[in-house]
Amino acid sequence: MRKLGIILVVLLCLVSLGAAPGQTSSAPQARLAGYSIAASAKQREWEEKFRALPEPANLRAYMQRLTAQPHHVGSPYDKDNAEWMLARFKEWGWDAHIETFDVLFPTPKERLLELVAPTKFVAKLQEAPVAGDTTSGQQALQLPTYNAYSGDGDVTAPLIYVNFGLREDYETLDRMGISVKGAIVIARYGHAWRGIKPKVAYEHGAIGCILYSDPQQDGYNVGDVFPKGGLRPSQGVQRGAVTDTQYPGDPLTPGIGSVPGAKRIALKGAPTIVKIPVLPISYADAQPLLAAITGRVAPKEWRGALPITYHIGPGAAKVHLKALFNWDTKPLYDVIAKLPGSEYPDEWILRGNHHDAWVNGADDPISGQVALLEEARALGELYKQGWRPKRTILYAAWDGEEPGLLGSTEWVETHAEELRQHAVVYINSDSNGRGFIYIGGSHSLENFANAIEKDIQDPEKKISVWKRDQMWRIDDAKSADDRKEIRNREDLRIEALGDGSDYSPFLDHLGVSSLAIEYGGEDDAGVYHSIYDDFYWFTHYSDTDFAYGRALSQTIGTAVMRLADSEVLPYEFTNFADTVKKYVDELQKLLKDKQEEAEERNKRLEEGVYTAMSDPKNPTLPPPTLERPPFLNFAPLQNGLETLTASAERYRKAMQKAEKNGDLVLSPDVARELNAKLILTERALIVPEGLPGRAWYKHQIYTPGVYTGYGVKTLAAIREPLEERKYKQAEAAIPRVAQTLRDSAAAIDAASAILEKAAQ
Amino acid sequence: MRKLGIILVVLLCLVSLGAAPGQTSSAPQARLAGYSIAASAKQREWEEKFRALPEPANLRAYMQRLTAQPHHVGSPYDKDNAEWMLARFKEWGWDAHIETFDVLFPTPKERLLELVAPTKFVAKLQEAPVAGDTTSGQQALQLPTYNAYSGDGDVTAPLIYVNFGLREDYETLDRMGISVKGAIVIARYGHAWRGIKPKVAYEHGAIGCILYSDPQQDGYNVGDVFPKGGLRPSQGVQRGAVTDTQYPGDPLTPGIGSVPGAKRIALKGAPTIVKIPVLPISYADAQPLLAAITGRVAPKEWRGALPITYHIGPGAAKVHLKALFNWDTKPLYDVIAKLPGSEYPDEWILRGNHHDAWVNGADDPISGQVALLEEARALGELYKQGWRPKRTILYAAWDGEEPGLLGSTEWVETHAEELRQHAVVYINSDSNGRGFIYIGGSHSLENFANAIEKDIQDPEKKISVWKRDQMWRIDDAKSADDRKEIRNREDLRIEALGDGSDYSPFLDHLGVSSLAIEYGGEDDAGVYHSIYDDFYWFTHYSDTDFAYGRALSQTIGTAVMRLADSEVLPYEFTNFADTVKKYVDELQKLLKDKQEEAEERNKRLEEGVYTAMSDPKNPTLPPPTLERPPFLNFAPLQNGLETLTASAERYRKAMQKAEKNGDLVLSPDVARELNAKLILTERALIVPEGLPGRAWYKHQIYTPGVYTGYGVKTLAAIREPLEERKYKQAEAAIPRVAQTLRDSAAAIDAASAILEKAAQ
Repeated sequence: MRKLGIILVVLLCLVSLGAAPGQTSSAPQARLAGYSIAASAKQREWEEKFRALPEPANLRAYMQRLTAQPHHVGSPYDKDNAEWMLARFKEWGWDAHIETFDVLFPTPKERLLELVAPTKFVAKLQEAPVAGDTTSGQQALQLPTYNAYSGDGDVTAPLIYVNFGLREDYETLDRMGISVKGAIVIARYGHAWRGIKPKVAYEHGAIGCILYSDPQQDGYNVGDVFPKGGLRPSQGVQRGAVTDTQYPGDPLTPGIGSVPGAKRIALKGAPTIVKIPVLPISYADAQPLLAAITGRVAPKEWRGALPITYHIGPGAAKVHLKALFNWDTKPLYDVIAKLPGSEYPDEWILRGNHHDAWVNGADDPISGQVALLEEARALGELYKQGWRPKRTILYAAWDGEEPGLLGSTEWVETHAEELRQHAVVYINSDSNGRGFIYIGGSHSLENFANAIEKDIQDPEKKISVWKRDQMWRIDDAKSADDRKEIRNREDLRIEALGDGSDYSPFLDHLGVSSLAIEYGGEDDAGVYHSIYDDFYWFTHYSDTDFAYGRALSQTIGTAVMRLADSEVLPYEFTNFADTVKKYVDELQKLLKDKQEEAEERNKRLEEGVYTAMSDPKNPTLPPPTLERPPFLNFAPLQNGLETLTASAERYRKAMQKAEKNGDLVLSPDVARELNAKLILTERALIVPEGLPGRAWYKHQIYTPGVYTGYGVKTLAAIREPLEERKYKQAEAAIPRVAQTLRDSAAAIDAASAILEKAAQ
Repeated sequence: MRKLGIILVVLLCLVSLGAAPGQTSSAPQARLAGYSIAASAKQREWEEKFRALPEPANLRAYMQRLTAQPHHVGSPYDKDNAEWMLARFKEWGWDAHIETFDVLFPTPKERLLELVAPTKFVAKLQEAPVAGDTTSGQQALQLPTYNAYSGDGDVTAPLIYVNFGLREDYETLDRMGISVKGAIVIARYGHAWRGIKPKVAYEHGAIGCILYSDPQQDGYNVGDVFPKGGLRPSQGVQRGAVTDTQYPGDPLTPGIGSVPGAKRIALKGAPTIVKIPVLPISYADAQPLLAAITGRVAPKEWRGALPITYHIGPGAAKVHLKALFNWDTKPLYDVIAKLPGSEYPDEWILRGNHHDAWVNGADDPISGQVALLEEARALGELYKQGWRPKRTILYAAWDGEEPGLLGSTEWVETHAEELRQHAVVYINSDSNGRGFIYIGGSHSLENFANAIEKDIQDPEKKISVWKRDQMWRIDDAKSADDRKEIRNREDLRIEALGDGSDYSPFLDHLGVSSLAIEYGGEDDAGVYHSIYDDFYWFTHYSDTDFAYGRALSQTIGTAVMRLADSEVLPYEFTNFADTVKKYVDELQKLLKDKQEEAEERNKRLEEGVYTAMSDPKNPTLPPPTLERPPFLNFAPLQNGLETLTASAERYRKAMQKAEKNGDLVLSPDVARELNAKLILTERALIVPEGLPGRAWYKHQIYTPGVYTGYGVKTLAAIREPLEERKYKQAEAAIPRVAQTLRDSAAAIDAASAILEKAAQ
């Protein structure tokens, strides 16, 4: 069905130069989606002017300034940066201010980690300065290495190595008959949001958790280490928050802005704060601990790149871990800057990047922040030249992203009502580097995002970043079917968003259509959240000439302008429906896989496979019997999807009909009415009561996973219980999600009706 | 077709207790294939008596004796061991003698490896003795660490790391624009016969080759190193031959026995001797060399477990490699022992294991050799009790396997004519350890091998080793289809044999049906071909109580007895035809894959994928265009296969018809005539002219690969040129292989005709 639809549209486009999913882009004069021919031509002129403005030298200078000192939450330079950016926004013609919030931000009071048996070793817990890299020596200003929102604790216990510390790792331990109850676990970083590791350790009875950076993930095994190369040196430590996944933002003010007088929950028992002490360490500190562990040799997939035999324990190794914190309240400084909309001032295009870092943070987050600033300078410049965005543009430099999206979440929670009314799209960036474009976000913007990608030139390859993205996907594809789709589908698929940056409160909590955009993939980095992520490192081992910083400015600036100026908001729903279909298919396959897994597992138990495979010298226990998953009633979901697909198609046709001679000319009143409806299509995807057990997360299509953190779970209300083998709960969620699909369809229909009426 | 056949046979068996592929085995009184009911019952009694005889304490004592000193080719203890075994065979009632050959066996005259730039480092090239392990200190008797049949050479050149040194690794280098021309390469051991590495290096222009054991393969990354555990310590070195793959045996007497007066080819230019110097080193010696290499960082799959960044070079590192040899002739001592056949003395059941080692060789080869000796003692004991094998049994303890199957090959070449006439089956063993049974060999013996497996009890699990093998395969299977076959096919598939032990001359050169049998898989070993492979190591880290040594004795002894005593040789051809069908299907899939690969490659070249993916900081070149493979005429092969399948089925039916009331009673004359034909069925698979370019290898179904060595290539005359993209050559080979399938069918038909005639 859809294929045919696309072919039809392509044919129409050839005649009309109309913009639609089938559009083959870079035909130079192609009309922009949501624009009349005349407006489109004018818009393209402004956009081209814009793209000529960003200067790598400026990006470099901003970075040097912003990373000159550590600028974590609560540090003097964090505030200083905010004020400096505020001044820049103003200088560039923006209406800007700083908004502050007071949030819980613990810092270390005492940290101790020592091996107490079989030999004694005291961990350094300190990153060494590097000659030549001046900011790495600002030790007095640096936050010590720690995990924010670790529990207070002073524990001594046997040490057990748990690989990445994920639930599947504990299943492996169960098969070996190893329990972490009463033990301290050591897990390597990677494969999930770090907060999952202590959470799962605690759930399994561990009383302490050590996180370390194995050189296999981002150390010498990957490439030369800093300062010879860009990878993690032996003393490098990854700081980071370890909050649980119920909600982001200030742990004490879930769902509301932490403004003066806000009602705070008690620190003790705050749900997202870890119950056990957690401490991150370097591989120099980890090696003696790991080498001291005896007991079972770790399975192949568990072994890192240290020159030791990885044992699991428990055995000879015993450690003493002490981690105590100052549970202080610290101020956040969000910088908010506005260019007013000329026609639709109440429709807001938002764009943000955070400015706080764990230390000097050149890559994370300043590489993205400097692109944002340069966009702001360029947009200000255009404004001076007479360009007037139809919609209001809001630029934000968020504070407190690192400890848990604090600055964005508190701002969103504080301004929730305004945002529900006015927010159209939020565009986020964070770290940025050399390489390929990455776009994740709302699939109703997939076609729009593809159009943007086609207009940006890759600084290395002198082809569009869309083309290079397509080439990358062909190279990376796992199957011939995947390659076929990549070659033939009009739009490259954008990823669904999980967690990990400031889009989350906009998208997940409020249902504001969002995009996250960055470049990267060509440079291996191993300085993440360490003192070495600084100007020296970035200008030696990342986007050294800021060519991709400029590309990011060009990309997001173009997107912001095109969204701000469009007559009709460039939403497109057939890609969205197609994506939801993929998810629905995945859920059915997931159930089938679970059924087959249970059948196979139980058959093996009966046959005695596990017993026969158990080596008496390294015995393994059979896994538990699995309940065979029942068949579930997916019909409501399939029906809901069909309704959504029909509505998406109806809107596409309505848009086509509204075009006259290939042009799209709507009266301002119709456009205004239509846009108001379009904005609501993403809002229709949230439910006020939120996800079962995670009320803060209200989006029914995209949610960060309870046990992945960064990784998205789509249709999570059904998918997560399915994954957890809670089949009744999964089935119970189907009608609610199906209703959301119908709500979404209805919201799209409301837009279609306006278009259809206008076309009569 | 076949499935139905099986069901039919199962039904018949239920009525008749007849032996056939469908037989569900351990029904206690099931008639043995090739036996009358009466003979079967009697045979089972003798076999049970036999299996009660092997004693772990004896295996242990033999091993202690045989490994007490280094016993490589030409060493005093090599001869001493041969004489000791000769005495044992005689003591146990065997007619035994030693047969000697004089072979080329180079040993080091001078070895030097040093890093000459950017810093100086001289490799130790010496394994350190280990306290407590007395034989590791016999330094005066040990062969130095070296690769036999390395070329003489003294070269100094830049060093380049080539991963495992396989052809695909050089393709990766090509993509990076790195040539090894004029360089010395360093490759890690693994993933192929070691002789492939210098061969491929030489083909690419390298002037020297260093081989090293990366701790990722068998060092600390796998488990605790010796003496704390069984893995390779930092100074452990893997010795080994590096001859090319044209033929095994004495490099100077291809195809003929190296007896006094044999015509020898010139040493200079001998085809299997490497053209460049090769030296094996430890990871302690390798690390400074690898760490000194600069240039491109090695791709992920290339990185080992040393605590360094693996670079490829060429760059700063330059090495000086000197390897000079004494090209001496040394004597081999093959011990040959015989129990004469009572009814068919001219039909020989052969069984062998080698006795030479690189150093003390407890695992390789004495763990297998002691099982062989204990079989011989037990068979001798039965003989004393009155058991008389119908066929002649020949036991062999081969010398000179390590340098290239010298002892077995020279013996086979010397006795080729007799063997062509008399050899029925050859059964080989080599290293043996704890775990699962492994059987490779001729597929006309697949059903027989399965029947044996079902009668042997696993010492750990107290289930049959067949059952445990099946459980292992279910656990290891890659797809549901594979699991289904494992669960439902009457026989577990046995592997085709490639190279790596003494079966090769029997099977590949003469067409003697062969089996290779061993246990293993539960213990990781890292002492292969080092001074640490000794009694201390084996009794601490391998089959410490010799339970699996005993199981090997029981398994092979039972097989030997059952083959020696059967009235009709237990060949079964439907499994063989089914296996050949798998190979024929694989060839067609291989061509299809090559076509798709070419199409995809060329499409990407056209699209610019490779250019778009090339990182300017680490540029990669596009791979070359591929000629699209033509469709090939597989019809002759398919027709040949159909003929073979029909013949296999005809024999099965003829055997069924020959049974009267579930019993198989043939007159001795008919049996004799039938067996003579059956023996020829494997001979029919060889062609006198041998494989194109490798005349020594005459088997058309099984051949060690030119570029894998150990790894088998089935239907190699077609498969290898297909893999090499030499499509014309592949197609030209099809009729010849098809003719072999028809010859095989004719040989089977000749047997069927006798059975059919007898049944009339």
